[in-house]
Amino acid sequence: MRSLYHYWLCPFCRTVRLVLGEKMLECALIVERYWERRPEFIGVHPSGQVPLLVDVNGEIIAGNGAIADYLNRKYDSGTKLIGQDFQQMLEVRRLSDWFNQTFHSEVSYMMLYEKVMKRNLHEGVPDSSVIRRANANMDRHFAYITSLLEGRNYLAGTELSLADLVAAGHISCLDYISAISWSKHPVVKEWYAKVKSRPSFRPILDDHVPAVPPPSYYCDLDF
Amino acid sequence: MRSLYHYWLCPFCRTVRLVLGEKMLECALIVERYWERRPEFIGVHPSGQVPLLVDVNGEIIAGNGAIADYLNRKYDSGTKLIGQDFQQMLEVRRLSDWFNQTFHSEVSYMMLYEKVMKRNLHEGVPDSSVIRRANANMDRHFAYITSLLEGRNYLAGTELSLADLVAAGHISCLDYISAISWSKHPVVKEWYAKVKSRPSFRPILDDHVPAVPPPSYYCDLDF
Repeated sequence: MRSLYHYWLCPFCRTVRLVLGEKMLECALIVERYWERRPEFIGVHPSGQVPLLVDVNGEIIAGNGAIADYLNRKYDSGTKLIGQDFQQMLEVRRLSDWFNQTFHSEVSYMMLYEKVMKRNLHEGVPDSSVIRRANANMDRHFAYITSLLEGRNYLAGTELSLADLVAAGHISCLDYISAISWSKHPVVKEWYAKVKSRPSFRPILDDHVPAVPPPSYYCDLDF
Repeated sequence: MRSLYHYWLCPFCRTVRLVLGEKMLECALIVERYWERRPEFIGVHPSGQVPLLVDVNGEIIAGNGAIADYLNRKYDSGTKLIGQDFQQMLEVRRLSDWFNQTFHSEVSYMMLYEKVMKRNLHEGVPDSSVIRRANANMDRHFAYITSLLEGRNYLAGTELSLADLVAAGHISCLDYISAISWSKHPVVKEWYAKVKSRPSFRPILDDHVPAVPPPSYYCDLDF
């Protein structure tokens, strides 16, 4: 059986779950509190990082980008997710990186660290000044995403791509911890509603992190 | 003429400069204070992001990953940088992402924001508790890199790859702002000395950011 070691509120893990879902690949999920560095987990891959995929053939692949590349190469029937031509591929890559690098460091990492990981790691209480800064960064970044979506159905063009799944990985984590003021971002909300209603999203909407209950609208398709 | 819009202390920009150097592609450098959102710069690419490459044919590519993909496809003679086979390609990808995502959000973004960008953005003075946390994260991450380098010449295996250039992009920025205690990390230091001595690194060692002088050992190959 294929299995994925993941943590619920890891944006990178959520992206991989969505890629598996879009490719309709069944996969057992193993929740890994990766910061505890469980010896059995380190034994599977010395990096101790999530997401970590163990495929049906026993192949072990670590990291969101490498897993997406692997799945696209190995299971290339149906949804390609990386664009139809080279130009589009570059745009998918640009936006995926932008969410995983810039949006991550300036918004999702800060929010998730303050609101969730600080407690997991016993590193104190949330710092409201950091949360305010992450909020201001989110507003600025969502304004750019809004301008992008005004001419496109999906982030990188007319078709759903990996860029949408990467973005949804981050945004769904933030939504789970009630960190998004949706009324301020109607265009981003409309795009998210579309992505959220895909069958690949269903398992993510069913997530319930112990001691971190989601807001009531989290799993609502018409939020 | 090919040109690259960049900012000196942007790790992603430094990686692209190293890739250009390894491929021996000449490129004019345009320093862009991207946070000022200069209209002429937004006019070139509406994302307003660096690195931004304008190639000799006029093609415009934004973002470190997309630029690296583009250069590898377009100028594929000589150094490939992305591994010899699929397994190695996945390892290059894993480590490049790991530095650009995990190491960035937990170390380089935090350090560079506190020590450089806060001043550029007029957002106050460095917060020593954040710098302490970034330092602790760096120690933990360098311990993993040390264990990796004990069985390898370069990060992803026996040959230099994009993973080394990505890592060097981050580490050289941190070194420029005196954020690394090299005596604590001799194995990482040895790897960095090897990468630093490559001709592609020369222009980066000549950088002088106005009002941010580097430490005396910054450009020293035998530091």
